[in-house]
Amino acid sequence: MKIAGKAYRTIWLGEDGWSVVVIDQTRLPFSFETVRLTQVQEAADAIRHMIVRGAPLIGATAAYGVALALRGDASDAALERALALLGATRPTAVNLHWALARMRARLIELPETERVAAAYAEAAAICDEDVALCRAIGEHGLGLIRTIAAAKPVGERINILTHCNAGWLATVDWGTALAPIYLAHDAGIPVHVWVDETRPRNQGAALSAYELGAHGVPHTVISDNAGGHLMQHGEVDMVIVGTDRTTATGDVANKIGTYLKALAAHDNGVPFYVALPSPTIDWSLSDGLAEIPIEERAAGEVTHLRGVGEDGRPGIFQVTAPGSPAANPAFDVTPARLVTGLVTERGVAPASFEGLSRLFPELAQERMK
Amino acid sequence: MKIAGKAYRTIWLGEDGWSVVVIDQTRLPFSFETVRLTQVQEAADAIRHMIVRGAPLIGATAAYGVALALRGDASDAALERALALLGATRPTAVNLHWALARMRARLIELPETERVAAAYAEAAAICDEDVALCRAIGEHGLGLIRTIAAAKPVGERINILTHCNAGWLATVDWGTALAPIYLAHDAGIPVHVWVDETRPRNQGAALSAYELGAHGVPHTVISDNAGGHLMQHGEVDMVIVGTDRTTATGDVANKIGTYLKALAAHDNGVPFYVALPSPTIDWSLSDGLAEIPIEERAAGEVTHLRGVGEDGRPGIFQVTAPGSPAANPAFDVTPARLVTGLVTERGVAPASFEGLSRLFPELAQERMK
Repeated sequence: MKIAGKAYRTIWLGEDGWSVVVIDQTRLPFSFETVRLTQVQEAADAIRHMIVRGAPLIGATAAYGVALALRGDASDAALERALALLGATRPTAVNLHWALARMRARLIELPETERVAAAYAEAAAICDEDVALCRAIGEHGLGLIRTIAAAKPVGERINILTHCNAGWLATVDWGTALAPIYLAHDAGIPVHVWVDETRPRNQGAALSAYELGAHGVPHTVISDNAGGHLMQHGEVDMVIVGTDRTTATGDVANKIGTYLKALAAHDNGVPFYVALPSPTIDWSLSDGLAEIPIEERAAGEVTHLRGVGEDGRPGIFQVTAPGSPAANPAFDVTPARLVTGLVTERGVAPASFEGLSRLFPELAQERMK
Repeated sequence: MKIAGKAYRTIWLGEDGWSVVVIDQTRLPFSFETVRLTQVQEAADAIRHMIVRGAPLIGATAAYGVALALRGDASDAALERALALLGATRPTAVNLHWALARMRARLIELPETERVAAAYAEAAAICDEDVALCRAIGEHGLGLIRTIAAAKPVGERINILTHCNAGWLATVDWGTALAPIYLAHDAGIPVHVWVDETRPRNQGAALSAYELGAHGVPHTVISDNAGGHLMQHGEVDMVIVGTDRTTATGDVANKIGTYLKALAAHDNGVPFYVALPSPTIDWSLSDGLAEIPIEERAAGEVTHLRGVGEDGRPGIFQVTAPGSPAANPAFDVTPARLVTGLVTERGVAPASFEGLSRLFPELAQERMK
């Protein structure tokens, strides 16, 4: 997507043809800076310190990390060391292990002399496939936006509410939930995005607002409390969010607070869509509320915030009463009954096992065994 | 209520017997400081600059402001000047004008020599009446908490979720929504409060957490996004909030985000109560969503936050992407169908015209005319 008119992905090769360049997401939204990765250790650090984040982007960075490692030493031992180093950075990110397993399978049988070129090619393929997947999600979501636009007077803005950041910064390009919005905007449909700030980590206010603004998509940041009121007053035409895990029955685990927006959408007849690449479907689960474990994160994310002071310097500051404890569940589960549809790379499915298995019969069959 | 073991109201007379002392709420929760008001101008400034806030406390401060004015000059002209000065501080606060009208009615017919003493007596009566009203709300709400406690194993904690600050800092003492909680805690019932931080102004994280902590009530601050998840997992036994305006039919306007918690409570079978003194009932309204105007406040409250930096100094910090606009509706309306009961000074009523008119027949009659 574009930043100040220039097209970017979140990860690319440097002009030297071998170093890996990423956007430093810890500096966003207050500063756009890139970081050049030249060794596997730097790639691991970039993942660990959240210079890159978002499951697909983490996978892509790890893949290039393997390529960097092999440049110095393409032996079996060096490959295994790189895989172990990168695999230990964020143990809960599924895409990380998927990408590393794919790199190993591609490389381990090759002669050492062919491994570096093959690693770069495979990492590039992982990136390109992610872009294609997100783009396909975008095309299917665009159809939904076109339908809503067709029901409104020509030129009237389409108001779309989103929660957290499921945009291009979380992937290699396009994003998941935001991909349809970028395609609609680029197609000249007058979309406007209500951006939930998404406390406690403010991924909406910091990252979604940044990337929408940089690409020129009209948007407005709101507190997480405001969405229900906007829906009550007809100010939201659709909701679209991402998901971290989806059950085979269509329950979705996503950033904490998603469930509250789904309830409000349901209460006001606003369509509520969830965008997801098929790898986020956990075909082994059928009851999201009972079966998806919810990560409890550090209380400090609630009591302290990152921001920029009046002197222009970034810092950490406390916002809660000193001594008051805080709790920080990071995700919640929205039951399938509140989800209008699941927007996947193969089309829009009802949030049910029947709906998902019609689009992904070969994956659903695995579950039936 | 207590701060570090010492009982306080939010407003009291100084040791000299005539100056007025208030807690500087702009310094909370990071510093407890009192301010001594000796002239009517200082009282007006305290209201305008939100050293005192909360509709009942604003009314009480204004009443004492009249008394301070008359000490220097008890003439009709001085009285009218004081009323005009104080009345212009916060034009939307209903209690302010109610208190000033009451002071004028009490004083205007008296000889000048009796006015100062009468003004202090009337201001004290306003304060005492507010305390009694909140205490009565607390007693009725305590009954609800006792009922919930009786249904749980002995000693198991009662989890109560609240939004914004409807505590003693918003009134003269006890508060509205928090009054039942203080009474339950003081009675030895093991209550624990989930405190919504209440973005964008953080009245929960800053004020409710502070006053609960200072009184020793167990509590945990959560992001506004977390309440639905907690209810899904049985971690909330009841919700109790305040209200800024209540229709004759039981719709309630309260801090933005209240509606989302009401939806989640309804979806999970959690009782949702609203605590209110009868003056917040607007008997002329029957459709809260259509008829209650919602204040749109400054975008800066969303884009910038007050907090304390790592150097211990308070400051203002930007948290949103630079250049991204923000919207800031301050209240939302929770329809009566989502409200389990209205906790008033005369008892708990169903959220309906029938329910309210049974408790307040003399006020309901006015509407029927």
